[in-house]
Amino acid sequence: MSLHEHEPLAAEMCVLGIAARDAARALRETTADAKNAALLAAAAAIRVHVDDILAANAQDVSLAKMSGLSGALLDRLALDADRVEAMARGVEEVATLPDPVGRELARWTRPNGLEIARLATPIGVIGIIYESRPNVTADAAALCLKSGNAVILRGGSESARSSAAILEALREGLAAAHLPADAVQMVPTTDRAVVGMMLSGLEGTIDLIIPRGGKGLVARVQSEARVPVLAHLEGICHVYVHEQADPEKARAIVLNAKMRRTGICGAAETLLIDRSVLKSLGVQILEDLHAAGCEIRGDKDACAVFAGAIPASEQDWRTEYLDAIISVKAVNGLEDAIRHIETYGSHHTESIVTEDTSAAERFLWALDSAIVMWNASTQFADGGEFGMGAEIGIGTGKLHARGPVGVEQLTTFKYIVCGNGQTRP
Amino acid sequence: MSLHEHEPLAAEMCVLGIAARDAARALRETTADAKNAALLAAAAAIRVHVDDILAANAQDVSLAKMSGLSGALLDRLALDADRVEAMARGVEEVATLPDPVGRELARWTRPNGLEIARLATPIGVIGIIYESRPNVTADAAALCLKSGNAVILRGGSESARSSAAILEALREGLAAAHLPADAVQMVPTTDRAVVGMMLSGLEGTIDLIIPRGGKGLVARVQSEARVPVLAHLEGICHVYVHEQADPEKARAIVLNAKMRRTGICGAAETLLIDRSVLKSLGVQILEDLHAAGCEIRGDKDACAVFAGAIPASEQDWRTEYLDAIISVKAVNGLEDAIRHIETYGSHHTESIVTEDTSAAERFLWALDSAIVMWNASTQFADGGEFGMGAEIGIGTGKLHARGPVGVEQLTTFKYIVCGNGQTRP
Repeated sequence: MSLHEHEPLAAEMCVLGIAARDAARALRETTADAKNAALLAAAAAIRVHVDDILAANAQDVSLAKMSGLSGALLDRLALDADRVEAMARGVEEVATLPDPVGRELARWTRPNGLEIARLATPIGVIGIIYESRPNVTADAAALCLKSGNAVILRGGSESARSSAAILEALREGLAAAHLPADAVQMVPTTDRAVVGMMLSGLEGTIDLIIPRGGKGLVARVQSEARVPVLAHLEGICHVYVHEQADPEKARAIVLNAKMRRTGICGAAETLLIDRSVLKSLGVQILEDLHAAGCEIRGDKDACAVFAGAIPASEQDWRTEYLDAIISVKAVNGLEDAIRHIETYGSHHTESIVTEDTSAAERFLWALDSAIVMWNASTQFADGGEFGMGAEIGIGTGKLHARGPVGVEQLTTFKYIVCGNGQTRP
Repeated sequence: MSLHEHEPLAAEMCVLGIAARDAARALRETTADAKNAALLAAAAAIRVHVDDILAANAQDVSLAKMSGLSGALLDRLALDADRVEAMARGVEEVATLPDPVGRELARWTRPNGLEIARLATPIGVIGIIYESRPNVTADAAALCLKSGNAVILRGGSESARSSAAILEALREGLAAAHLPADAVQMVPTTDRAVVGMMLSGLEGTIDLIIPRGGKGLVARVQSEARVPVLAHLEGICHVYVHEQADPEKARAIVLNAKMRRTGICGAAETLLIDRSVLKSLGVQILEDLHAAGCEIRGDKDACAVFAGAIPASEQDWRTEYLDAIISVKAVNGLEDAIRHIETYGSHHTESIVTEDTSAAERFLWALDSAIVMWNASTQFADGGEFGMGAEIGIGTGKLHARGPVGVEQLTTFKYIVCGNGQTRP
């Protein structure tokens, strides 16, 4: 497609960006009560329009089936009355969170009497690029609205009708609470050219892009974006069973970290076991996993002690399975484990199981991951489990936010300086 | 130059990136005492090598003169014994700052007993791209080292010899304190191709780029970088004299905000005056500025009341003069002032002068600038004046750090989660 053909679309996207920026300015000065009223009204509107949403979704699903969409993707796309109700409840839960805007993050007074405060403020306009999961439309919009940000949504083409129906309900909620409906907008077409336009920032109107989806989507966004990106790439999470591990804790933690839900980014993908406990505790752990239906891909040592294991390749140490598969490696103590994780990990979440405090402290400090754990399951890597309420994902970047990204992480701050006529000498 | 010709350079830059990453890993686990010892040893080495530094600088200066470098740039390039001593003292002052690494930013306990702490950690490897100011070599390296980061420096070509001599002293200090000298490195050539390589992140080894220099440099870095940028673009700072301003405060603040130092980013560039006080207080302020040697570019109303003003063009409202020039506009009250600043400002620093608390509060909250002030000079927009110690610049971006960027802002954080065997239900 030529550049020329995109001109009307580019113009339309610019208008959308300006509307978002104007809505963001209004939201910045909106009270917590008004934002919460809008969220509750949006939840109510989702319930009122459940039939419209389900009808739109049925169209999406039948088109997706015709184009050969596969099982897991189809499952993510499909809605039913329970899922729509869960969506409405999710929006209501966001309303119950403490308001993240206006929080005093710091305050101090200078010797010259200037009083300086750092206060949390909304970021502005957030672009969300996601795949064909209609519920993300409601989740992401609710979190952005709660944190005072306007949002521009670009969902997957397969869920376009469902998302549009959900969007209508959300905008109805905003209007009912006398907030600008343009605080939540969706791009006008599923043309992939709009993604490039969003990544270029829409003439300076988009402050932040958040991709939600698989590694391919996130990698594309990271490599093309001209505006800041808060990204949630893969989670190659490790559990390290130290020689001083409590056996019961180790068995429970590994099984839970891997098998509770295998498809989430906090699921363990690689198990490291101290060589000294491989034949004893290690074998028990591998038997637990095997019995739970987990495929075990071991290094030479793991395969030698456990007949159910198949040999791991070099690529296995770099793979996020998101499935009932685990790679297992025997290590020569703490430093060897740290080296492996720093070499192959994705800086998401790692856990050490040990009763040795100094080994734990060394592990917790030496690793450069967003979340490091001691005697706990990596599946706790989650905004809800952290007590932050809903999250928009887990960040593994180093700037701004890392770990679970909830409403507080969707704010920035400003300094407010109060004086009584001070001039600088 | 063809891509092929850059291959050896690209390989060399990759080696440099890997050395920086390894040094960053070592620094991450270095104690505050060791980092401070390295800074003090570096300051001592700067003093020991003052003659080498001055000789190298003399070569830079004479080459720069031959190539026709102009007055202000030449002044920034030239060193003398006093300037080298100031550089050494600056490094010592960074050593006296509190260590920003390991600070506990938050801590809470979950109902299931998990203890979660958010601790400050170094960012990793920081790339600094700057112009021909040799002192930035020492300043930037000291701030990065203090915050536990390795640094890759790329200074302007005119200061290459001076910067190399300063670098040697810094590395001598690191080695004396048994820290890896590669914590501070400089690119091997002034070939502009290295800038592009740094902006692409050197194969994932650079975590953050900080440009220090004029608008052209910062704009290039922002548009080309493939890694996060902490940027300090222009400061079009406003002072708004509200109708309820105290006349003495207003006169002192405007004069100081504009004229104390005109070349810093916190200097005021536009003065907004409520129409109701234009003929009285407004004229006094313009007379003060005029008497101090400031050129006044006024709108129709300002020109009508003050004969010494020349007409401002539309472009003036968007211009950071960094000089003894101010643009002046009469406004119809608070909302008009806010609208002007949101339209033409650069989100750096704005100040309102008023005795009306509710007008001040509205101004402070409505503006989307990194720093907003009440009854104080915009020239306080500075890390030192904020009590942060040295700063690497002022950020106007919305992600990670805004306002003065000191050692605390050069850190990120991680979550440490301590349990006693918890698994997720």
